[in-house]
Amino acid sequence: MKLATLRTGSGSTTAALATGEGTYLALPASDVGALLGHENWRAIAEAADGEAISNPDFAPLLPNAGKVICCGLNYGDHIQEMGRDLPEYPTLFAKYADTLIGANDAVEVRGSARVDWEAELAVVVGSELYQADEHQAREGIAGYTVANDVSMRDWQNRTLQWFQGKAWDATTPVGPAMVTPDEAGEEFQVRGYVNGELVQDGNTRTLVFGPAQLLSYISQFTVLRPGDLVLTGTPGGVGMGMTPPRFLQDGDTLTTEIDGIGRLENQFRIHASVTAQA
Amino acid sequence: MKLATLRTGSGSTTAALATGEGTYLALPASDVGALLGHENWRAIAEAADGEAISNPDFAPLLPNAGKVICCGLNYGDHIQEMGRDLPEYPTLFAKYADTLIGANDAVEVRGSARVDWEAELAVVVGSELYQADEHQAREGIAGYTVANDVSMRDWQNRTLQWFQGKAWDATTPVGPAMVTPDEAGEEFQVRGYVNGELVQDGNTRTLVFGPAQLLSYISQFTVLRPGDLVLTGTPGGVGMGMTPPRFLQDGDTLTTEIDGIGRLENQFRIHASVTAQA
Repeated sequence: MKLATLRTGSGSTTAALATGEGTYLALPASDVGALLGHENWRAIAEAADGEAISNPDFAPLLPNAGKVICCGLNYGDHIQEMGRDLPEYPTLFAKYADTLIGANDAVEVRGSARVDWEAELAVVVGSELYQADEHQAREGIAGYTVANDVSMRDWQNRTLQWFQGKAWDATTPVGPAMVTPDEAGEEFQVRGYVNGELVQDGNTRTLVFGPAQLLSYISQFTVLRPGDLVLTGTPGGVGMGMTPPRFLQDGDTLTTEIDGIGRLENQFRIHASVTAQA
Repeated sequence: MKLATLRTGSGSTTAALATGEGTYLALPASDVGALLGHENWRAIAEAADGEAISNPDFAPLLPNAGKVICCGLNYGDHIQEMGRDLPEYPTLFAKYADTLIGANDAVEVRGSARVDWEAELAVVVGSELYQADEHQAREGIAGYTVANDVSMRDWQNRTLQWFQGKAWDATTPVGPAMVTPDEAGEEFQVRGYVNGELVQDGNTRTLVFGPAQLLSYISQFTVLRPGDLVLTGTPGGVGMGMTPPRFLQDGDTLTTEIDGIGRLENQFRIHASVTAQA
């Protein structure tokens, strides 16, 4: 099952079920997060008989996600190629739903000259998880989607805490759809492209902390609820790690792709010169 | 004007206006955050004619805060006594409203042996702020309150990012009330006590980034909305910095006090031995 949040005009959105190549049926919920709030969301989706939509305009998949929690330093092969030991614990940080945009939305950045990419598998929470073990966490995964944890490296590196480089409103594309685990499989090839050039290419089999492990770990200290989103980290190939470092330029197109899940394509408008006050 | 969120029984709450020593009048909003969602919240509060409440039971001041953003390393005297330079940018990190509890609620911690205190002045946002200058940010402050950014140092120090030591559900007391700037003054003495012993005592005049500066800085990258909460950092005297380090023990009472604003008193139940899985 593949679910998306689609714009329906005049600022409203609807959850929708994919029925074929690019065709959707509207569901009786404003977005996928609201749909997941119903315990019987699978049955609701299976009974879809709403309006057919053939030119989907993807809104942020989870426009009102209560929690958007990200994991850093999670691809074993990338960590080892950087000469570091595998971490004992996941590196976690938080952002807010205001960061999220749709799968094909333009990204406008004012005040950063170091806009970087982080192609990621993201996990959508499907049931309430608190102090859940790994089995419960696995059962609590509603599905998988694609995200790019676009990062303003100049701001991220101003201090030890990454939040201010990660939490810019309307800079994190997510979607286009959530694919349920039964259809998505277990291993995912995660790729990022800048203007069509492949820059990131990793497989989630090398994740130090897999999706269920991450959800279980997070749930030890904070409750996860249906519609929350967990980003699982990015493989090697970010611009900051290149020699010389490379960042997105005004007009660049960033593509983020996971086989069997979906593809984001976002054009960037970057106004580096507008600097903020400190 | 002094506003609080009070429990009214059967799980519901009400915003309320302080009318005298420990006496409140109920307001037509479920909590202070919901009240601040009305542009004319001051007029609504001034017209208070609801039920009189003389034994207030303080709920979390902002149970549904969309953003709870914290600043670290912000007291100049403490930074300098640690031999560090004053920072050029505020160190920011995020947590979620699930962390918040009421002014006199017990704190239950399972799975940390290093529970530490951070007495802080907190700022309640009163109007929408996005890319606001410092003057606009100052105008957008609804009021001040008291918070304690209780931190699980063992978890906080597992990785570079502090989130997992800071975002434990129901461990951040905040309140008891929000005091509007006209009544609160401009400089605040922030004190923390463990079982009545003074352990922290700082003045916000030594903040590197003051309340309006912090709100302006944050608003450069993410919108702040009425009812959001910004914690301004803690002065010297946390347990981790003591020789030897000292942490809260099961049964300890933590008191957090700001002259003219209010006082939190929270008893701790700590079960250190329950460790979480990684």
